[in-house]
Amino acid sequence: MTTARRDTYTPETLLSVAVQVFNERGYDGTSMEHLSRAAGISKSSIYHHVSGKEELLRRAVSRALDGLFAILEEEPARVGRPVGRLEHVVRRMVEVLIAELPYVTLLLRVRGNTETERWALERRRDFDHRVAELLKAAAADGDVRGDVEVRLATRLVFGMINSIVEWYRPDVRGASGPEVADAVVRLVFAGLRRA
Amino acid sequence: MTTARRDTYTPETLLSVAVQVFNERGYDGTSMEHLSRAAGISKSSIYHHVSGKEELLRRAVSRALDGLFAILEEEPARVGRPVGRLEHVVRRMVEVLIAELPYVTLLLRVRGNTETERWALERRRDFDHRVAELLKAAAADGDVRGDVEVRLATRLVFGMINSIVEWYRPDVRGASGPEVADAVVRLVFAGLRRA
Repeated sequence: MTTARRDTYTPETLLSVAVQVFNERGYDGTSMEHLSRAAGISKSSIYHHVSGKEELLRRAVSRALDGLFAILEEEPARVGRPVGRLEHVVRRMVEVLIAELPYVTLLLRVRGNTETERWALERRRDFDHRVAELLKAAAADGDVRGDVEVRLATRLVFGMINSIVEWYRPDVRGASGPEVADAVVRLVFAGLRRA
Repeated sequence: MTTARRDTYTPETLLSVAVQVFNERGYDGTSMEHLSRAAGISKSSIYHHVSGKEELLRRAVSRALDGLFAILEEEPARVGRPVGRLEHVVRRMVEVLIAELPYVTLLLRVRGNTETERWALERRRDFDHRVAELLKAAAADGDVRGDVEVRLATRLVFGMINSIVEWYRPDVRGASGPEVADAVVRLVFAGLRRA
């Protein structure tokens, strides 16, 4: 059955085009026709690689989610005092967000209209919950302040980190990924005010 | 010329319905027909109050912008050391965001496709710039850390504050406006880590 013409597209390059289109038009507003035009290949060539746009969405958000969950498996996220593990996770979240910018942007815009979107939202909630647990453990140790409720603090810290997708552009002169990660860690853990 | 039937709609109630529809459907995706259905009044009744949907957008984002700019005129934002003025502005930004939640939500989603949207973006940039200047003055005093670049710090702090529109719901049991404002001030100025 593999009579389809070989083209220069690999699943990875097709995915990268699809993510760009999803981020520009919104997932709901993107048709296979839009993807075909953006990729410069026929719809049937796309169907040679994937079953449809929902599979592309699933692959794209999986890439972002796998990047985020992998952080939790890194040694500094597993070993040591919770506050140090939390600091590692916050730094790496910023780095992954910047390294996988279009994929994380798409993940953060998922709204829950399809099965795949609901699954992605569920995994995001699971990740948020794991980070909130780390914050709770650090508070129990007395290493982080006890006067900001854990769920609220988690939401505000995620808010700061996730907002980076709104303005960070890799091709524009400005702060590098590690510089932004450093700034976030400093603000989140020590705040603006000079001691 | 005032032969139009009096109805119970005032410009304020119409505005509040319009903002809700804009936030649900997006400004671009909202027609006068959608507004007429949501308000339960005819299009001609709407035209009795306003010239069209762009006027409603302008009034709505003006309400958010006026609320934000009014903060800068408050005495604690004008008098004293810049770091204290900045703290007041950050606290009040959260309070205004929560008090005017649908209006600020709409403002933050403005994309720049129309004259009114470009004007709103320009005023937002102007406000951001005023806050960044305060942060710069506080850094020059040595009151805030010098190792995070002012523009980057401003973006991250605004990111944390603006993210509140994504999850804050006034009718759900949870933190109140002043509690959220307290949490933001603590995190932004002193950070998570216990000294």
